Amino acid sequence: MLFIGKIGKKDKEEIFKKYFNNMNKTRLALIQMKMSSNKEKNLAKAISKIKIAKKRGANIVCLPELFLTNYFCQIEKHSNFNLAENIPGPTTEIFSLLAKKLNLILLISIFEKKTSGLYHNTSVVINENGKILGKYRKMHIPDDPQYYEKFYFTPGDLGFKCFKTKKGNLGTLICWDQWFPEAARLTALKGAEILFYPTAIGWHPNEKKKFGKSQLESWLTVQRSHAIANGVYVAATNRVGTEKQGNKKLEFWGNSVIFDPNGNILKKGNLSEQILICDINLKKIDSVRRHWPFFRDRRIDSYKNILKNPKDD
Amino acid sequence: MLFIGKIGKKDKEEIFKKYFNNMNKTRLALIQMKMSSNKEKNLAKAISKIKIAKKRGANIVCLPELFLTNYFCQIEKHSNFNLAENIPGPTTEIFSLLAKKLNLILLISIFEKKTSGLYHNTSVVINENGKILGKYRKMHIPDDPQYYEKFYFTPGDLGFKCFKTKKGNLGTLICWDQWFPEAARLTALKGAEILFYPTAIGWHPNEKKKFGKSQLESWLTVQRSHAIANGVYVAATNRVGTEKQGNKKLEFWGNSVIFDPNGNILKKGNLSEQILICDINLKKIDSVRRHWPFFRDRRIDSYKNILKNPKDD
Repeated sequence: MLFIGKIGKKDKEEIFKKYFNNMNKTRLALIQMKMSSNKEKNLAKAISKIKIAKKRGANIVCLPELFLTNYFCQIEKHSNFNLAENIPGPTTEIFSLLAKKLNLILLISIFEKKTSGLYHNTSVVINENGKILGKYRKMHIPDDPQYYEKFYFTPGDLGFKCFKTKKGNLGTLICWDQWFPEAARLTALKGAEILFYPTAIGWHPNEKKKFGKSQLESWLTVQRSHAIANGVYVAATNRVGTEKQGNKKLEFWGNSVIFDPNGNILKKGNLSEQILICDINLKKIDSVRRHWPFFRDRRIDSYKNILKNPKDD
Repeated sequence: MLFIGKIGKKDKEEIFKKYFNNMNKTRLALIQMKMSSNKEKNLAKAISKIKIAKKRGANIVCLPELFLTNYFCQIEKHSNFNLAENIPGPTTEIFSLLAKKLNLILLISIFEKKTSGLYHNTSVVINENGKILGKYRKMHIPDDPQYYEKFYFTPGDLGFKCFKTKKGNLGTLICWDQWFPEAARLTALKGAEILFYPTAIGWHPNEKKKFGKSQLESWLTVQRSHAIANGVYVAATNRVGTEKQGNKKLEFWGNSVIFDPNGNILKKGNLSEQILICDINLKKIDSVRRHWPFFRDRRIDSYKNILKNPKDD
């Protein structure tokens, strides 16, 4: 490094700053909350919890899926489309102001009205200046008894997304995407360092006793495996509480969770309202991928049938 | 079903037999064993354990990866290529006779010499008539300190494979493939009902204390997630014991394991020699995939970047 003497100290500092970004430490906050049928109250609660997260030093805050409302997909009801809004719209405007005021990066989940008759389940990333960096529209849409999402949401049309921020590259996935290794892989390949999964998952009253433990374990396992297989952080934010719609009910199981790139649990929630605060070091990704060099060995020459469904016999 | 009266009872039975195959129950055996440097002894031990598995009612037996030898990949040594053999060759001939004699389906792992200078890490499936149904050549080849497999094995050239047998459709993957969700997905899409992973994985002496627990958990987790994401049985057979090569050693961690299509553990080994026997019901796959319909919702229109590596910035 003798040549360094020949250029100015300030030049050197600027070059090193450009190439050896020391921004590695990030404090995440996941807001695990209970929603009511009152949109105003849910909004006020989310804002108040984001402020608490800020006081606790968070740089990035992620809210649960569709935090403005009850999980309305429990039933198919046409008037529920009134709950949707445009992006940008009132909610993104409010959270843009908040992000700027608090100097925070926010991931918020919105029931998006694209146009009449065309709706999405969408995540919006807002940076610390209050700027909307972009959105991700849920790619995999479930449809199970009391999770009638195919009635409400058109599958996403933006592909898989990663947003560069000053506090890390954020991969935005949503709930049901959790079960698809393809979604995690594609988002990680785009450069994501943290995969966020705002979520609304819970137990059916008549399944909980027999299958509840296994369902929760599977949900944790599959996300943990995305951390391992891709060498990324994974952060899932779920809602809590039992919600009734007509004569239907679901018990949302909380258990919001943050995994490190080795798949170790850094933080895990329980069944109540909580703010999970977690420090992560993005440098760890590089170190983990050196020791578990899965990216090196992918057989991209042989994966083309992933783009197909099984053949007829 | 009134029309049934118009055809013969025997016709009806044959039609129903053709379409409603009642062959659903299969008994698996995984041979978790310790290898020595003596090929003859390893062969004799494998045969003796297969005979025990047969006595315990097994229909399908899977041996660990490269069960004929020590894990020679701990060092790079040209004379180790002498350990390789052709397929068909002496080992497949011996196990074909054995499979026929015992009326068993066998999965055996062979260091395959394709031609001078071209070697593979290969699984062979032999049916209960002693017929070689085909082979799978390990697609993902590791290369880590003391796992110098890239020195020995050319990456597989046969793609991902599934073999139909009377006791189920068998997916053949090998060890390092475990870490790649693509491999599990592609094999499941080919119709595999059980993913087999003959394996040789263990702890480095100087990593075990700090990382050993987490490494083993990751290995279990990632395989468990393949069962969940694909709704298939997963069966991994590992070796046990500490093996020395020169001044190097590895402690193989056993823990051979069978997961059901929900990711529940059916059987798990410890650190000693064991034969894991496990009854599975292939009908469960259909039921699990109805309740967790991930195949329904894959976005095959949006996965094409899985065939690429990350873009340059």
